[in-house]
Amino acid sequence: MNYIGIDLGGTNVRVALVNEDGNVLQVVKQATEIEHGTAHVMSKIKSMIREIKGYESIKGIGLGVPGPVDTKNRCLLLSSNLPGFTNYPIAQEIEEEFNVPTFIDNDANVAGLGEATQGAGKGFDSTYYVTISTGIGGAFVNEGKVVAGKYGHAGEIGNLIIDRNRETLNHMNTGAIENEASGTALVRKGVAHFGDEVKHAGHVFDKARENNPEAIQIIKEMQYDLAVMFSMIAHVVDPAVFVIGGGVTEKEKDSFLNQMIEHFMTLVHPGMKGVQFKTAELEEPGIVGAAMLPIANLK
Amino acid sequence: MNYIGIDLGGTNVRVALVNEDGNVLQVVKQATEIEHGTAHVMSKIKSMIREIKGYESIKGIGLGVPGPVDTKNRCLLLSSNLPGFTNYPIAQEIEEEFNVPTFIDNDANVAGLGEATQGAGKGFDSTYYVTISTGIGGAFVNEGKVVAGKYGHAGEIGNLIIDRNRETLNHMNTGAIENEASGTALVRKGVAHFGDEVKHAGHVFDKARENNPEAIQIIKEMQYDLAVMFSMIAHVVDPAVFVIGGGVTEKEKDSFLNQMIEHFMTLVHPGMKGVQFKTAELEEPGIVGAAMLPIANLK
Repeated sequence: MNYIGIDLGGTNVRVALVNEDGNVLQVVKQATEIEHGTAHVMSKIKSMIREIKGYESIKGIGLGVPGPVDTKNRCLLLSSNLPGFTNYPIAQEIEEEFNVPTFIDNDANVAGLGEATQGAGKGFDSTYYVTISTGIGGAFVNEGKVVAGKYGHAGEIGNLIIDRNRETLNHMNTGAIENEASGTALVRKGVAHFGDEVKHAGHVFDKARENNPEAIQIIKEMQYDLAVMFSMIAHVVDPAVFVIGGGVTEKEKDSFLNQMIEHFMTLVHPGMKGVQFKTAELEEPGIVGAAMLPIANLK
Repeated sequence: MNYIGIDLGGTNVRVALVNEDGNVLQVVKQATEIEHGTAHVMSKIKSMIREIKGYESIKGIGLGVPGPVDTKNRCLLLSSNLPGFTNYPIAQEIEEEFNVPTFIDNDANVAGLGEATQGAGKGFDSTYYVTISTGIGGAFVNEGKVVAGKYGHAGEIGNLIIDRNRETLNHMNTGAIENEASGTALVRKGVAHFGDEVKHAGHVFDKARENNPEAIQIIKEMQYDLAVMFSMIAHVVDPAVFVIGGGVTEKEKDSFLNQMIEHFMTLVHPGMKGVQFKTAELEEPGIVGAAMLPIANLK
């Protein structure tokens, strides 16, 4: 059986045919052009769906969108990157056009669902997906279904306070993990120590590898801060596996994560230490996860 | 339809007949006498079930036990208060004796399930139950089912680090909320300020009511610490409602909680502020919740 997964971003829309095993069979991509209005975007999505071979016989459609979603009423609650789409009945309109069950969730939840059901979380009862990238976000997938939360904010772990005695930086909480261990945070800390030569997070990792003590200190702090964040998620929902995505830790994956996990193990009860840590496996978690939304919601 | 709910504690066992609306129709209570061994306790439970009027026509049995539970394999993973019951197939043995579906979960999860389905959480999609008593614990109930966690530790929120720069006190994390805002913590802080005249948490509240500035400071810190903990749970799962049980905040409920909630609202994203805070409503959440386990698991 085949499904359509749609990744509707502020810049591009991608519409893909995905089978029930998570294999991507066809992808169509176009610029979103949100500046031309919601009607333009909706009409574009519909014609892209018609470009998919065999779209007439798909079993369901799923959409991933940027921002918190009311999954019951199937609409965006807030859409800074898609002006006009707040409370717009996207899923309902597509469902009525193509006459198949259509579901919607935010992009982090959709990527988490993809990883949980077809990627690194496959075979586990519950997955907490954590993405460490420009920002830090996540998604909780329990028994094959996303737990999106009443207001679509489950997984907004970037705002978890890992140390309240830090500098207040922006609208996020003082000591929020996103301000302390995201790619953006690493660049900020790197620039503070080394000046403008630090252009991206990788530069701080490079300096640490060259045994620069200040860079090593930044990385060590980041590892401990992340361990505190993971311990919080574990005490709240005790998932079977943490799946870690996002580019920041990519290059140093093993050594960086091993040290982080060592800290984590000191911060949880003995009985919780069986939780697995895995890195994300899918090339296209966004469109695969979107296509899994109908499967998850119809079971 | 009627169910049997069993609250198996280290001191007492209670076996109750509960109908599907959560009404307690009969309760039988005995001392557990765990010192006489597991066979003695099991035989006692079985004869107590036979004391229930109409036990032959019940639709299911649920047990609440002290300690983390593997809900899939239906056994206690650790049972400090019930020596001998670690990995013991309690639920299976009762199921075979009475030939009805039998389920088991830890006492906090069971109380949370009771409150979520028949108490203050009734009618909400998801409830995070938080008990502030001698210790601090909790339970996540999503769409009528307990999310117990892979290792039975979901809801072990007492170990959440609300401020890592506190004193290290015991096996729990430095700055764990249970060490900072439980009844035990209040007594410790009270004794440190006022000496041995403080015998229980209520004394610190009494002094605050008498405008003692140190007591007021202790209570204010506790309110903020709890707000940080609630913000963590909210960012991880975004429940529709928090249900607060336990005796510590009982007397000062409204004024204490209102100030705490005010802090909470400063620590979450604007879209999350709709979450409700309610106080627990059931007189017997433990036995009602235990009786709801078969309903939750069979749907």
